[in-house]
Amino acid sequence: MNLLFVKREEDWMKKIINEVENIVPEMISGLVRVNHELVKQIPNTTAVVRNDDDFADSQQVGIVSGGGSGHEPLHAGFVGDGMLSAAVAGEIFTSPTPDQIYEAIKAVDHGQGVLLIVKNYSGDVMNFDMAKEMAEADDIKVKSIVVDDDISVENSEFTQGKRGVAGTVLVEKIIGAAARAGKSLDELEQLGKTVIENTKTIGIALHAATVPAVGHPGFELKDDEIEFGIGIHNERGYSIEKISKSKQLAADLVNKITKDFAKKDGKFAVLVNGMGATPLMEQFIFANDVLDQLKKQNIEVGFSKVGNMVTSLDMQGLSLTIMKVDDDWIKWLKEPVKTIAW
Amino acid sequence: MNLLFVKREEDWMKKIINEVENIVPEMISGLVRVNHELVKQIPNTTAVVRNDDDFADSQQVGIVSGGGSGHEPLHAGFVGDGMLSAAVAGEIFTSPTPDQIYEAIKAVDHGQGVLLIVKNYSGDVMNFDMAKEMAEADDIKVKSIVVDDDISVENSEFTQGKRGVAGTVLVEKIIGAAARAGKSLDELEQLGKTVIENTKTIGIALHAATVPAVGHPGFELKDDEIEFGIGIHNERGYSIEKISKSKQLAADLVNKITKDFAKKDGKFAVLVNGMGATPLMEQFIFANDVLDQLKKQNIEVGFSKVGNMVTSLDMQGLSLTIMKVDDDWIKWLKEPVKTIAW
Repeated sequence: MNLLFVKREEDWMKKIINEVENIVPEMISGLVRVNHELVKQIPNTTAVVRNDDDFADSQQVGIVSGGGSGHEPLHAGFVGDGMLSAAVAGEIFTSPTPDQIYEAIKAVDHGQGVLLIVKNYSGDVMNFDMAKEMAEADDIKVKSIVVDDDISVENSEFTQGKRGVAGTVLVEKIIGAAARAGKSLDELEQLGKTVIENTKTIGIALHAATVPAVGHPGFELKDDEIEFGIGIHNERGYSIEKISKSKQLAADLVNKITKDFAKKDGKFAVLVNGMGATPLMEQFIFANDVLDQLKKQNIEVGFSKVGNMVTSLDMQGLSLTIMKVDDDWIKWLKEPVKTIAW
Repeated sequence: MNLLFVKREEDWMKKIINEVENIVPEMISGLVRVNHELVKQIPNTTAVVRNDDDFADSQQVGIVSGGGSGHEPLHAGFVGDGMLSAAVAGEIFTSPTPDQIYEAIKAVDHGQGVLLIVKNYSGDVMNFDMAKEMAEADDIKVKSIVVDDDISVENSEFTQGKRGVAGTVLVEKIIGAAARAGKSLDELEQLGKTVIENTKTIGIALHAATVPAVGHPGFELKDDEIEFGIGIHNERGYSIEKISKSKQLAADLVNKITKDFAKKDGKFAVLVNGMGATPLMEQFIFANDVLDQLKKQNIEVGFSKVGNMVTSLDMQGLSLTIMKVDDDWIKWLKEPVKTIAW
C-alpha cells in the first residue's frame, strides 16, 4: 500500500514527506540541523534539548515538555533560553515513550530538579508519570503539572477531563521565564497550577487535519460549515454552525470564554493560535475582532500574541486562549527568549 | 453578491474574514494592536514603522520595503531593530500606492537617506520609483534595489524579468543588520545589489492560493500533481509533475538551483519557506532532505532557516532559496533582531 499518496478526489491530501514511518525522525533531524546553534538531539531519541553553555552552567530547574507530533512548532520550537529545557516528540498524535522522556529529564537536571509540563491526554499523563518514577529512582526530584485549558468539552476521544491545547505555550513561556529567574521546583509547580487554572481556550475548525497514515481528514465539514470546540487531534467539538464573519466568530468565542471567568477585573493575556493551514492574514483579522470584543467588555489586555504555535497538522482553523494574569506573568510573557518559534 | 462565501464544491474556500474590501486595513490593525511595542501605524495609511526609541534617536539609513498583501509575515512582520524600518502594504497581490510609500520614506529618514527594497513586479517598481521621486523633491536621499531571486521563469504575469520571491526576506535581514551596523546609503545599495545577484529561489505548489475577491484557487492541479516554478501570486511555473517524495523534490530543486551558480566553493545560506498552508512538519522534512543533497554536492551551509516567511495566502507548497554568502553576510543573517516574525 502506498501510504504516501492515497488517491482521493480532493487534492489537499498531498504532503511533502517520505515514508510515513520516518516522518517524526526526519522532521526532528531537519529541525535540529537547521537550528543546531539553539538545540541538539539526545542521541537515539526524538528528544531535543537546549544547546547553550549558559544553561549547562546554570542552577536552573529543568523544564521538560512533550507530546505527540503534529503540533509544530510545539514543543521543540520552544526549547531555549527562557522557555523549555527539553522537548520530547512522540509519533503523530501519540504520546512519547517513558524512556525517551526519562532521557530528557536526566539531560536537563542540574540538581535543582525538573518540572514536567504535560498536556492532559491519558497517554501523555501515563507516560510522563512513568518517566517521573524512573527519574525519581535515580534521585532526581521531579514534579509535573497538567495543562487542561480547553473549556469547550469535558472528556474526549483521548482524555478524561478537559484537553490541553494552545494555552500550553503560554504556560511554557511563563514557567520558562520564572525558572530562568531562579524559582525553585516547588515554586514552579505551584505557579504552574495557578497559571493553568487561569487559562481557557476554545478552538474552531474549517477543515479537519489529515493524519498521514490515515490518508483522509479526521472528519468532514460541509462547504458552509464550521465546527466549534474541536481539539488538536481532530477531536469533535460542541457544535457545527454555518460559517459567519470573523467579527461574529470573535464575539461567540470571547463571550463563551469570558463567561467562564468568575471575575473580569485585572489584566488578561490573549493568544490567537493558527491550526496549521490558516494564513496569518486571517489570524490577524480575527485578533483585531477579539480585541474589539474585549474592549467592549472593558477587559484589559496586558499581553497578546498571534501565530501558528500549537497546530494540528494541516487543519484549517484557529483557537482563542484568554488567561487572567498578574503583573509578574505579563513580565514573564514579554521577556525575550532564544527559541526557534516564540 | 456575497464575496465572503462563494459557494463551491470544495470547502477550503472558507476564510476567517469580514468584508473583502476591509481585509488589509483590518489585518494591519490586528498586527499593530497585538505588536504595539514593536511597531506603529502611520495614521491613515497601511504603512507600519518601528516603534522604538533606539531607532528614533539613531543616525541609521532607513530601510523601507513593501508590496501587495497576502504574503504575511512579509513585510510588516520584519519591521524592527536589525531589519526593516518600515513596511507598506498594498491590497492583496497589488502594489501599495506611491503616496503611502512616500509617507513611509519620510517617517524613517534621519538625514542619512532611505533604501527601498522592492520585489521585481512592474507595479511595485513603478510605484516605489514614483515615491522615490516625491521624496527626492523633499531633498531626502533615496536609493532602491530590486529583488529578482526567482530563477524558475523569465517574465511572468505581473513582471518583466525574474520575479522577487522568498529570497527577499534574506535580503531584508542582511541589509537591515548592515544598516544597524552603520553602513551608508551608497554602501547599502551596493551590498544589496551584490546580495541579490547571489540569491536564487524556486517555488513549488501542491494547491494554488484563493484570492478572497476571486473566490476560487488561481489554478487547478490534479490530485496527484505538483507544479514547479510557481510564483507567490499564483503565477504558473515551468512544469507540472506527478507528486514525488520529499527526497526527490529536494534533489530536483537543489540541482536546478546549484547549477545556476557558477562556483560552488565558499559558503551558502538556505531558506525553506512555507507558502501558507503547508505545515512546519513538512517544511522540516524537506529541509532535512535539502541539507542531505547539499552535503552530497560538498556545498557548505553557513546559515539555514525554515518557516512561513513569504507566503501566498493559503497556497500549499514551499520554496527553496539558496544564497552564496560571505562571512559578513552570515554574521548579519545570524544577528538577533526585534521583529514579529523573523
